[in-house]
Amino acid sequence: MQLAGWVDRTPPSFIREILKVANQPGIISFAGGLPAPELFPVTELAAAFAAVLAARGSEVLQYSPSEGNPRLRAVLADYLSSRGTPARAQDILLTNGSQHGLDLVAKALLDPGDTVLVEDPTYLGALQAFLPYRPRLAPVAADAQGMRPDALAASLRAERPKLIYLMPTFQNPRGACMDRRRRLQLTAIARSAGVTVLEDDPYGELRYRGQHLPGLRHFWDQVVYLGSFSKTMAPGLRLGWIVAPPSLLPALKLGLQATCLNVSALTQAVAAAVLAGNGYHAHLQGLRQAYAERLEAMLAALQRYFPPGAVWNRPQGGLFVWVTLPPGLQALDLVDPALAEGVAFVPGAPFYVGSGGAGAMRLNFSNAPPALIETGVQRLARAIDRLAGRATGA
Amino acid sequence: MQLAGWVDRTPPSFIREILKVANQPGIISFAGGLPAPELFPVTELAAAFAAVLAARGSEVLQYSPSEGNPRLRAVLADYLSSRGTPARAQDILLTNGSQHGLDLVAKALLDPGDTVLVEDPTYLGALQAFLPYRPRLAPVAADAQGMRPDALAASLRAERPKLIYLMPTFQNPRGACMDRRRRLQLTAIARSAGVTVLEDDPYGELRYRGQHLPGLRHFWDQVVYLGSFSKTMAPGLRLGWIVAPPSLLPALKLGLQATCLNVSALTQAVAAAVLAGNGYHAHLQGLRQAYAERLEAMLAALQRYFPPGAVWNRPQGGLFVWVTLPPGLQALDLVDPALAEGVAFVPGAPFYVGSGGAGAMRLNFSNAPPALIETGVQRLARAIDRLAGRATGA
Repeated sequence: MQLAGWVDRTPPSFIREILKVANQPGIISFAGGLPAPELFPVTELAAAFAAVLAARGSEVLQYSPSEGNPRLRAVLADYLSSRGTPARAQDILLTNGSQHGLDLVAKALLDPGDTVLVEDPTYLGALQAFLPYRPRLAPVAADAQGMRPDALAASLRAERPKLIYLMPTFQNPRGACMDRRRRLQLTAIARSAGVTVLEDDPYGELRYRGQHLPGLRHFWDQVVYLGSFSKTMAPGLRLGWIVAPPSLLPALKLGLQATCLNVSALTQAVAAAVLAGNGYHAHLQGLRQAYAERLEAMLAALQRYFPPGAVWNRPQGGLFVWVTLPPGLQALDLVDPALAEGVAFVPGAPFYVGSGGAGAMRLNFSNAPPALIETGVQRLARAIDRLAGRATGA
Repeated sequence: MQLAGWVDRTPPSFIREILKVANQPGIISFAGGLPAPELFPVTELAAAFAAVLAARGSEVLQYSPSEGNPRLRAVLADYLSSRGTPARAQDILLTNGSQHGLDLVAKALLDPGDTVLVEDPTYLGALQAFLPYRPRLAPVAADAQGMRPDALAASLRAERPKLIYLMPTFQNPRGACMDRRRRLQLTAIARSAGVTVLEDDPYGELRYRGQHLPGLRHFWDQVVYLGSFSKTMAPGLRLGWIVAPPSLLPALKLGLQATCLNVSALTQAVAAAVLAGNGYHAHLQGLRQAYAERLEAMLAALQRYFPPGAVWNRPQGGLFVWVTLPPGLQALDLVDPALAEGVAFVPGAPFYVGSGGAGAMRLNFSNAPPALIETGVQRLARAIDRLAGRATGA
């Protein structure tokens, strides 16, 4: 599409600039959404690569079926069904990470001018995937659980959308999680309007408190579901998946062929081996425990160092805490003072399609150990003090 | 996009059906375009995976720069430049195979209704990548070397296209290779019209006779070039690359982020190790020798078994021989008799955007050893006899 238009409409380049600066030595970064590399199951993955290449190297290095590795599809179907997202092997397509799934759903469903309803705020990568297909993005008001049912019902009447995009579990950026009742309400409303729901679920396995909840396909079998191994195994596998109703699969599969022919048979075979292996449950448990400690460290540091008037949520899982600064302070104004103190974060406003979030900031807690998290929050608090002093003319 | 419209406009489903049947036991397949799995450098790749995961597992399993692995981009830039396709590391983006490159170029350049000039016949996967962006496809007449300069000049005046898509070296489906003069002529014509040229080069390293020729970027530095490791290393790596002028790179990179965030850092590190390794040149030489033997086996068998009136080219490289049946016979009518004899091929007509190729067939010679190739051609000749007998009422 027209380069100028596209480049202008993508997520603000200053977020990309923050992420670059955040990688510099001496900076404690709460800015990205990276899983902790020291927790990757490197040994298990290396063993699986070696075993798969030794046993059937020429097979897994060849082109492979567009839908994906039959064994991985079968293992995934069992796993997902046992976790409350009903899926049969034939409902699943493997993708190059769930970002690829976002692209394929948009490619299959959206014509220019079609309306997509999104939570406000929502995941920027989804907007980036949708924009080349030129939809109209309509924000729907959200509360602490994500999209509000009354707001969805009103938007469905007003907008006649083609797609509803939701991240019900530990949403990026707010960390919000819908309870069972909210899941049921939203799918019932979408179902009666006959509008496709896209559930994006990269963080569902990263729950640190409370009880695992079923996915939206549990309530309506026409929901399209996106999952990923990036947070549970490793992003370097570049493996995600789509679970879709039979009516959508042919177009999704054509899109997959058009964009990459097929996903690597090698990494799929490795993921199948690890997912079906004996150590996977223990690996996930270890991951949850380590991230829970980091989350607690961040919450404790916020409590200890942040000024009165700042508020934040206590997410039950995922990778992010959502903080709102004391009234009168803008998170955008805090970026530079924070970097000057040696800490990076991403402001909340860019995640909104509508207006909002001027005082909000997204803090990632997965990519630093607890002690660094405490130091980083302390630095942030100092930056807030400086900003507040400036704001009051002190 | 509208599913029905898209599904209807993709390459004929009977080709997909042929490819399915071609995999059945007892069928000798000339239908696909698969590299020979027994020639994959499995040992070298397994050693590289083990070494990379042992040395920096947590790094290569993490998310990575959208542009690709800096070392692979540098090694590739040197390699390509030494082979006549000028490239600097910063001109290169890594992709999930060159099919992904086709998608990204279309995403960055094409608005609905834009015209793309393609050789006639052309690669079906490119059409499949372009179609979701709703261009108008305008076929340009080709001869034994591919797109004709006079036809390109006329089409540029008549069509005002956005993009010219070319596969100058061992084209799929015809196996045609443009000589140096043709390369110069076509780029000069495109350059003076200021229209972007996309050079798709999956087979350039598979030359069995004659001299290696420079890529189109040698003649014009604004040419966009697509390469792939699928034919030289293995398709299971799912690694290709784009070389593009600086003006196009920002949009291509945004497209890459939108479709997959980044390509696997792990497989990129492995490819860099193999490409820079001591054994790569010998591996390529072995590959060329094995494929040259298969090509010779096919040409000899065609000479021996095919009826008078059939004609074919003698490609200097690549994976395909292009055969035209004796006058009066249609390749489409030969599909079923051939399958009945136990041999599969793909008819030529579907590769044409315009009309043409009714008597043509594409024969792949890379995926079977010489003895099987001879048997397969003998079977095909029997099927032709049967079809000719029917055609003359004998």
